[in-house]
Amino acid sequence: MSQQLTGIAASPGIAIARAFRYAHTAAETPERAEVADASAEAERFRAAVARAKTEIDAIRESTARRLGAAKAEIFEAHLMLLDDPDLVDAVLEQIDNESVNAEYALHEVTGMIVEMLRGMDSEMLRERATDVLDVSGRVMSHLKGRPYAALSGIAEETIIVAQDLTPSDTAQLDLDYVRGFVTEIGSRTSHSAIMARSLELPAIVGAGKAAADVPDGTTIILDATEGRIVVDPSDEELADYRARKEAYNARVAELKRLASEPSISADGAHVELAANIGGVEDVAKALENGADGVGLFRTEFLYMGRNSLPTEEEQHETYRHVLAKMEGKRVVIRTLDIGGDKELPYLSLPKESNPFLGQRAVRFCLSREDVFRTQLRALLRASTAGKLNIMFPMIAVAGELRQAKAILAEERAKLESEGIAVASDIEVGIMIEIPAAALNADYLAKEVDFFSIGTNDLIQYTMAADRMNDAVSYLYQPYHPSILRLVRMVIRAAEREGKWAGMCGEMAGDLTAIPLLLGLGLGEFSMSASSVLPARELIGMLSKQEWARLADEALQLGTQEEVKQFVEQRSRA
Amino acid sequence: MSQQLTGIAASPGIAIARAFRYAHTAAETPERAEVADASAEAERFRAAVARAKTEIDAIRESTARRLGAAKAEIFEAHLMLLDDPDLVDAVLEQIDNESVNAEYALHEVTGMIVEMLRGMDSEMLRERATDVLDVSGRVMSHLKGRPYAALSGIAEETIIVAQDLTPSDTAQLDLDYVRGFVTEIGSRTSHSAIMARSLELPAIVGAGKAAADVPDGTTIILDATEGRIVVDPSDEELADYRARKEAYNARVAELKRLASEPSISADGAHVELAANIGGVEDVAKALENGADGVGLFRTEFLYMGRNSLPTEEEQHETYRHVLAKMEGKRVVIRTLDIGGDKELPYLSLPKESNPFLGQRAVRFCLSREDVFRTQLRALLRASTAGKLNIMFPMIAVAGELRQAKAILAEERAKLESEGIAVASDIEVGIMIEIPAAALNADYLAKEVDFFSIGTNDLIQYTMAADRMNDAVSYLYQPYHPSILRLVRMVIRAAEREGKWAGMCGEMAGDLTAIPLLLGLGLGEFSMSASSVLPARELIGMLSKQEWARLADEALQLGTQEEVKQFVEQRSRA
Repeated sequence: MSQQLTGIAASPGIAIARAFRYAHTAAETPERAEVADASAEAERFRAAVARAKTEIDAIRESTARRLGAAKAEIFEAHLMLLDDPDLVDAVLEQIDNESVNAEYALHEVTGMIVEMLRGMDSEMLRERATDVLDVSGRVMSHLKGRPYAALSGIAEETIIVAQDLTPSDTAQLDLDYVRGFVTEIGSRTSHSAIMARSLELPAIVGAGKAAADVPDGTTIILDATEGRIVVDPSDEELADYRARKEAYNARVAELKRLASEPSISADGAHVELAANIGGVEDVAKALENGADGVGLFRTEFLYMGRNSLPTEEEQHETYRHVLAKMEGKRVVIRTLDIGGDKELPYLSLPKESNPFLGQRAVRFCLSREDVFRTQLRALLRASTAGKLNIMFPMIAVAGELRQAKAILAEERAKLESEGIAVASDIEVGIMIEIPAAALNADYLAKEVDFFSIGTNDLIQYTMAADRMNDAVSYLYQPYHPSILRLVRMVIRAAEREGKWAGMCGEMAGDLTAIPLLLGLGLGEFSMSASSVLPARELIGMLSKQEWARLADEALQLGTQEEVKQFVEQRSRA
Repeated sequence: MSQQLTGIAASPGIAIARAFRYAHTAAETPERAEVADASAEAERFRAAVARAKTEIDAIRESTARRLGAAKAEIFEAHLMLLDDPDLVDAVLEQIDNESVNAEYALHEVTGMIVEMLRGMDSEMLRERATDVLDVSGRVMSHLKGRPYAALSGIAEETIIVAQDLTPSDTAQLDLDYVRGFVTEIGSRTSHSAIMARSLELPAIVGAGKAAADVPDGTTIILDATEGRIVVDPSDEELADYRARKEAYNARVAELKRLASEPSISADGAHVELAANIGGVEDVAKALENGADGVGLFRTEFLYMGRNSLPTEEEQHETYRHVLAKMEGKRVVIRTLDIGGDKELPYLSLPKESNPFLGQRAVRFCLSREDVFRTQLRALLRASTAGKLNIMFPMIAVAGELRQAKAILAEERAKLESEGIAVASDIEVGIMIEIPAAALNADYLAKEVDFFSIGTNDLIQYTMAADRMNDAVSYLYQPYHPSILRLVRMVIRAAEREGKWAGMCGEMAGDLTAIPLLLGLGLGEFSMSASSVLPARELIGMLSKQEWARLADEALQLGTQEEVKQFVEQRSRA
């Protein structure tokens, strides 16, 4: 009899293959043993650490090559861990004090650190436990003389089943054989989940303890469109899922054909379907999925996961690289959006009672002109490599926009006087994510080249509900008439001034929202790369003119439920 | 030569009188002495504590009689302090351990507690130091056999000059002789400042160390309209300030004459000028200042400064009392608005990352129906005593309003089936303080009897700026066109459905905003009682029809600065 498990669908797709049970070397508890020569034992430990470093460095390099610099950054952090006295010196000390074997000392120290990290409030620090286990496991494998990276040796079609997968695990997955993976712990935002989506590898995370009982070598079905795992399937189930898999893959292939098509509605209206990216490494996927441009480059990732601000040169290189790779397609680069839920520990910003209502994004940049000017110079210098649009986030009032534009103009003038080329056609726009800006859009439109509506924050502020707070998550209502009315105000204000209006929040890629947004006249939709093709397909089936009429009707409704029902009924009609 | 000092104008007015230097008994450091019989010394201390309690209880009673139950609450807290082991037992222990005199032990223990409290992050806890000093000083006076309450013996016109005034000091001020006071420390929100405003006594707080040098008995001028103190004034200065005082008093008297006048514009439009209150004790001042009703009764004060929820009976009594005292004038009672910056420690609510965007006010009440139903029953039972309006705060979407109304209807039905009378004309409305509600006002208007615009929160959410955060306080812009447009939407939506629209935020009493609000058609303005008469005077000079036209013009402007300038120019014209 087959058995079914469920988990969180972390990366879509369907796979059928044998299960490969995978456990880290570090997971076994080593025996405690006295050693006669503590200093020789310490030397043995140091050698294992050195070998681990060499390996990690190699993984870092190959990851940078295969998946881009940002994905490789985690291994910089791993190398730093192996210089961390809390880990290495603590082990050496225990070997010295207790004349104990290195395996035991490493296991003890690792256990303590991991326990401490898992007790932390911060999700980010808790996730660090996985990194410590990864690094420590690799050192342990060298102490034991056994290979750590068992995953790289897989040579038949498998679905990996593990408690969790570390960064070095996922970096070494051999995509010729690995068809997907299942983990016991984790969420959609875990490192392993993010990696699976990058690799377009079907994956289910958080399947719970039950996953630990899946026998090694059993055939399993991984349905990561539904979050379902079928262990030891019956012939009927196998046949059923083979058909589903085929249908799924056919659908993906069909969509891929749209990658080279224009984004155009059934009645001939052109729109721009762009991708949101976080770094150079996301550009390839944006292009593969046929994005018409980049509608949002979140530059804060350049500032995160490090110990100091990125230099002008580092930034310039990244921006230039992205612009060049996009080959003349529009690239909207948002200036630093830090604060709120995104912290930069090395700036030691003061703790705020309500960080989402605090000194974030452009408010921060205007208070720290040094940081802002460095980024603007890097952007201006890169502008000759492609079609650059600069976008300021969290603008509430005209005064802020004017200040930001004045600083930009100063930096341009400085560069030009230094004889450095700056493109003459850079468009400058703002995110509309604060209700005040939406309500004032007719005025702001005169002073920008474009608007991009950031729905995640716009909804949060318009509803006065923290989108990270479960107790009020029922108020995250993208189809609420109040939100749609603000969206309409922004689009109309842009139209009247002959500027363009786009959207770069979650809503832009939402298939229920798209008909309304098309009807309201939105010109640019920026979304995760994987949403571009389904959106293009949908838009190709919609009449913009008809939805202009329907959107006006929908905006007369009173609640999100009514709007949703309305759109669903009219879409079916 | 006269000398000038400055401080914070805590309560307006001008006074001229001799300075009365006042220092607490507790301030002097007592000698340390060994005692032969430690248990007799302990007994002497206990007796002093008992006498202090009797006195505090008497002050509590007379304060409740003179100034209302809420102003007397602080003395409940003082009585509890004298049962606090950290204070009393610690002193007894020191007497026992060291065979030391009670005065010295009390001084030592008090000093330690005060130092600890003053080191706290919380403003509220720091203010508690004043309470500990007050209570301890009273016990000390009994130990020394000297009277503590020197202030009650004043029998000539004086202005008190002190480091600080404690609750028991201010409660005992004899208003036949005391003309005002100056303190070295404190802010506009200190207990002494709040009390001065309640007593309508001119006061300057936070005048600094320099105030300590004012010689006892010198004549001083206290100009608490400007925050200026003139010590030992010249004849010219005396003449000047006597004239100013007369002018000020004449102006106050002139305004007071308006107390019995209707609120009516120059072109004959009637509006309602109501007062915001926090409890029964504020009603008298509302009536004295000629308020047409209570536009906002903030019931959360009933829930604060205690260890458990108020019972239905306690609440019922308060609501009934307020309704009866207002003699048939409209009383808008807002249901519990807790969360955000207002905590109730005894509910142990989970800590939120962004409390202003969290589960506050009606969101909390809908999650804790027990708390909500108790309050609604108390309100319904009190409804027969006057003209009750019930108002739900923080409504974002229609679903919340419907849920709240359904619960209210259930409680009404229950009471009626128990044979308890409930008024049939209770109006039910909502605060409009979330942008979504303002944008959806046309729909919500069908389901309420009234709106009241809460500008403090509405501005904070519309601007996405925490109004308590100095770094973004520049975004608290009441005259910004975005805010005014939301206000207009709300008023128009109410008009179309034949409902009334009021405002109960700071803005309603703001003399710059009033012309615009009148022009936009606001029907009710609710403000602090002391703002009612200046507002009535201003409205009497304005043409509603003219300002309707001017407001439309103002709403076409782009920034707060432009709007402000516009109103100022047109007001002068």
